[in-house]
Amino acid sequence: MAKVPDATITRLVQYLRALERMEEAGTVRTSSEELARATGVTAFQVRKDLAYFGSYGTRGVGYTVPVLRRELRQILGMGRRWRLIFVGMGRLGQALADYPILAESYELVAGFDVKPELVGQQVGPVKVRPMEELETTVREEHVDVALLAVPESQAVRVANRLVKAGVRGILNFAPVVLNLPEEVAVENVDFMAGLSRLGFFMLNPRWREEMMG
Amino acid sequence: MAKVPDATITRLVQYLRALERMEEAGTVRTSSEELARATGVTAFQVRKDLAYFGSYGTRGVGYTVPVLRRELRQILGMGRRWRLIFVGMGRLGQALADYPILAESYELVAGFDVKPELVGQQVGPVKVRPMEELETTVREEHVDVALLAVPESQAVRVANRLVKAGVRGILNFAPVVLNLPEEVAVENVDFMAGLSRLGFFMLNPRWREEMMG
Repeated sequence: MAKVPDATITRLVQYLRALERMEEAGTVRTSSEELARATGVTAFQVRKDLAYFGSYGTRGVGYTVPVLRRELRQILGMGRRWRLIFVGMGRLGQALADYPILAESYELVAGFDVKPELVGQQVGPVKVRPMEELETTVREEHVDVALLAVPESQAVRVANRLVKAGVRGILNFAPVVLNLPEEVAVENVDFMAGLSRLGFFMLNPRWREEMMG
Repeated sequence: MAKVPDATITRLVQYLRALERMEEAGTVRTSSEELARATGVTAFQVRKDLAYFGSYGTRGVGYTVPVLRRELRQILGMGRRWRLIFVGMGRLGQALADYPILAESYELVAGFDVKPELVGQQVGPVKVRPMEELETTVREEHVDVALLAVPESQAVRVANRLVKAGVRGILNFAPVVLNLPEEVAVENVDFMAGLSRLGFFMLNPRWREEMMG
């Protein structure tokens, strides 16, 4: 497999969303043009992104919706029911734990918080455990992924504990760069960065238009 | 200004974070190597990213921390005190409105929700108004940006209302593609996409290593 840009992985997720909507609507065939329209990129970009992973379309015929959907889910490791924990059960952690479509695709193991008044509470599908049980839970319940929603000042320390305990991936909501071993996957959900990018694009409104052209 | 990749804008935000930490620590000079270490990219990448916007470093001397910080803030439109509203004041909206560093950099105008029991409540620095007041607030109080944290099913409709009312940027937390006029900036904060990317990188753990190599 050739080296693909991070941005391609991001777009694969968007193509998958579009395909899911098509399948719900009963659409069987689609094209790079349709996928491009649904995700706001060019048809050339769609074909280039998919080409990294093999040839899924037929010239002049396009793509079979359920086939391409299945392939993308496999590439993205979906349908594996990764085992998740929520670390930090403040308002953000609670909003995440209670996010409806999460439980459909992932195994939600538990939440964790330092606050005694939160421990023992049920938030949507998960129960909050004390931070002292973090390592044993990760090891004994084979946790793959942690959603890290602790305060900025705690994020690095808690992430290191998670890695030592054997977590394979961290979705980090704290505005901190986590320098973790290469074998641990990290994705940052950083809405302050999103706001800063917005600032740039508001000051340069024709930017993306040019990029697409 | 040459066309820069979206990913460069994302990294500018990370460089800015690193520079802020350096300035707090009293560091006056830095290098592309140091910025690279702090943000997890190569020094070449740092120099390439900054070169899009002009030449900020001196060969063999590096960058002056406060100067580069000021330049990056300006490029990203920070320090403008954009005027923000929060649309959707459920747990996620509340977590956002109460996010401490937000009020430092932005003017927080109001929150909005359809639920009568939320209207009138004070959440951190903002008061919740009824959705009926959305358009007049945007117009009369010169709102620049909306943080959109409404349910998925409402996101497109509410986004269109915001655009019509004159909002210039939307930070979208709903897992939906918003097809808005080009003059409106949109950034998606999509943690489900982050989870899907995590899946890919957990299945292909040497991927990023190779990319960095």
